[in-house]
Amino acid sequence: MNICILGSTGAVGEEFIKLIEERSFKFNNITLYASERSVGKKYIIKDKEYKVSKLEYDSKIFKNIDIAFFFISSELSKKYALLAESLNCYIIDNSNAFRMTHPLIIPEINFNELKKYKSKIIANPNCSTILLCMVLYPLTKLSKITDIVVSTYQALSGAGKKGIEELESQIRIYSKDRQIKPDFFKSQCLNNVFSHNSPVDIFTGDNQEETKIINETKKILKNSEINIVATCVRVPVIRAHCESINITFKDDIDLLEIKNILSEFKGITIVDDRKNNIFPEPIKASNQNDILVGRIRKHIKNNISLFISGDQLRKGAALNAIQIAEMITPKKLQKNNN
Amino acid sequence: MNICILGSTGAVGEEFIKLIEERSFKFNNITLYASERSVGKKYIIKDKEYKVSKLEYDSKIFKNIDIAFFFISSELSKKYALLAESLNCYIIDNSNAFRMTHPLIIPEINFNELKKYKSKIIANPNCSTILLCMVLYPLTKLSKITDIVVSTYQALSGAGKKGIEELESQIRIYSKDRQIKPDFFKSQCLNNVFSHNSPVDIFTGDNQEETKIINETKKILKNSEINIVATCVRVPVIRAHCESINITFKDDIDLLEIKNILSEFKGITIVDDRKNNIFPEPIKASNQNDILVGRIRKHIKNNISLFISGDQLRKGAALNAIQIAEMITPKKLQKNNN
Repeated sequence: MNICILGSTGAVGEEFIKLIEERSFKFNNITLYASERSVGKKYIIKDKEYKVSKLEYDSKIFKNIDIAFFFISSELSKKYALLAESLNCYIIDNSNAFRMTHPLIIPEINFNELKKYKSKIIANPNCSTILLCMVLYPLTKLSKITDIVVSTYQALSGAGKKGIEELESQIRIYSKDRQIKPDFFKSQCLNNVFSHNSPVDIFTGDNQEETKIINETKKILKNSEINIVATCVRVPVIRAHCESINITFKDDIDLLEIKNILSEFKGITIVDDRKNNIFPEPIKASNQNDILVGRIRKHIKNNISLFISGDQLRKGAALNAIQIAEMITPKKLQKNNN
Repeated sequence: MNICILGSTGAVGEEFIKLIEERSFKFNNITLYASERSVGKKYIIKDKEYKVSKLEYDSKIFKNIDIAFFFISSELSKKYALLAESLNCYIIDNSNAFRMTHPLIIPEINFNELKKYKSKIIANPNCSTILLCMVLYPLTKLSKITDIVVSTYQALSGAGKKGIEELESQIRIYSKDRQIKPDFFKSQCLNNVFSHNSPVDIFTGDNQEETKIINETKKILKNSEINIVATCVRVPVIRAHCESINITFKDDIDLLEIKNILSEFKGITIVDDRKNNIFPEPIKASNQNDILVGRIRKHIKNNISLFISGDQLRKGAALNAIQIAEMITPKKLQKNNN
């Protein structure tokens, strides 16, 4: 079992390396790739040192590789997938490149979809989509969902390490009473919230993040008729996204049933203490694998709200990727490791 | 024209004092009251110094006063309103005490409601309600609103000066790599978002802020049938609230008409540049009188979204109060000042 990681030094890539150790993911060899400025960077994985190599367009990267993890841009994903596919290795891709054309997998929800596709490329959904679908999917067992209105509170690390660095730098500047000048983001991060930084479709008015949520959720839930309104907003939070979700069902639903079905779903932890005002928060969700779900309210007979928080670097990206890998390789693993 | 301010040293009280100068609000005398710890604090208003007196239960406070501004707790408002009313002065109250029983006024919307009531107590709506109603009201001219889903991004100064101090202190602590310990709020402010800190109704699951938005909006829009779902969330922002609003109308509506009617409404500024990703933000709305409105999108024929930001200390509180005062006193003012 040999794996390679393309984009190993980014926020998601480094989270993935942590998860390899944490989950005792079995492998013989790992090769790490990144852009030129990270070449030579070292990571200790299971007591062994691995050095980052330069990502160059060469089929050697994928020789004898069983699974390649892509934590790179859509453009690079498309380019390198061609090389990897020809060498018959699995690709688990975190970009937007293959989500609408290839299996789009959240293991708890639709792992069986893999069988329908011949391609060895598997797409990891958008981080906000994964968090949303993790709570919507179990509820589809109760009644058909007709409408969703979701407003997000997205951490700056969703834009990678530069997002984290920009917020931390603005905190230092503000604490010294100096003037903050936006750099990576066009808008000030500290003491501010701003509409998601992805480009906006001039005609619909939706930004790319919102379009991803809408299209991917329909595909994962296999319901193209669902009306989804998404409003994606960045908040000055280092890590873990929140989503305020309003859901309309076809039929009357029971609040207790909602709570039960959510609490029984693997990957969800209920944090919903009305008496003590204890609900999901990014700080509580950071570095956790589960999505925290709270503020579970029924408004009218077929309408409910939820407020969720989940670590978008974990379940929203690296964790979902490694879960897919764990599910496609059990037999091989046993053979290699016994 | 004599006025008094109860709670003059809080976040809203101080904003009100700024607005007296800024708007050249005409008066003969001002008396300032606050709790014991602020006694003796001085404010310069129109080149004259005013000292803060201790707020004590004595009808002298309201002797010869034309308008009393209450920026105090609901409990104190109820108590002092009894004294003030007996001396026949107007009370403009910013608390929750009289909102459901007395005129609840946003001057741009329903100033005429004042005539219906005999009482001289006038209630200022909740800050999030004012921001919301300022954009909903003009739209009611197009079609009846049937459903609203609103998620808020509320600044910490909504909880007063202690909210500001807590965030600023946590910024200093974080910049020194020290551990943040929540104090005034139960949850960490910096790098976090949390459900609004008001008590939660165990049965409905709505917190008090959400209940205010629902009840006050129905009263101001004179539409008790409207379905309102509100989710109120605090974000690490010093000043100015944001709201992500989804609105369903009875009839099909035209996006251009929506934009036109909003842009023509006094108190609203449109910030909606899809091409350059420029939309309302708390930093842009801070210290501004207008509500900024953007992300104006039509989803299906009778459903639209808006993202707004407004300074909750200004239009959400002090500005709305002074606007009410300006409207109830023009004749008196002319008499006194000519």
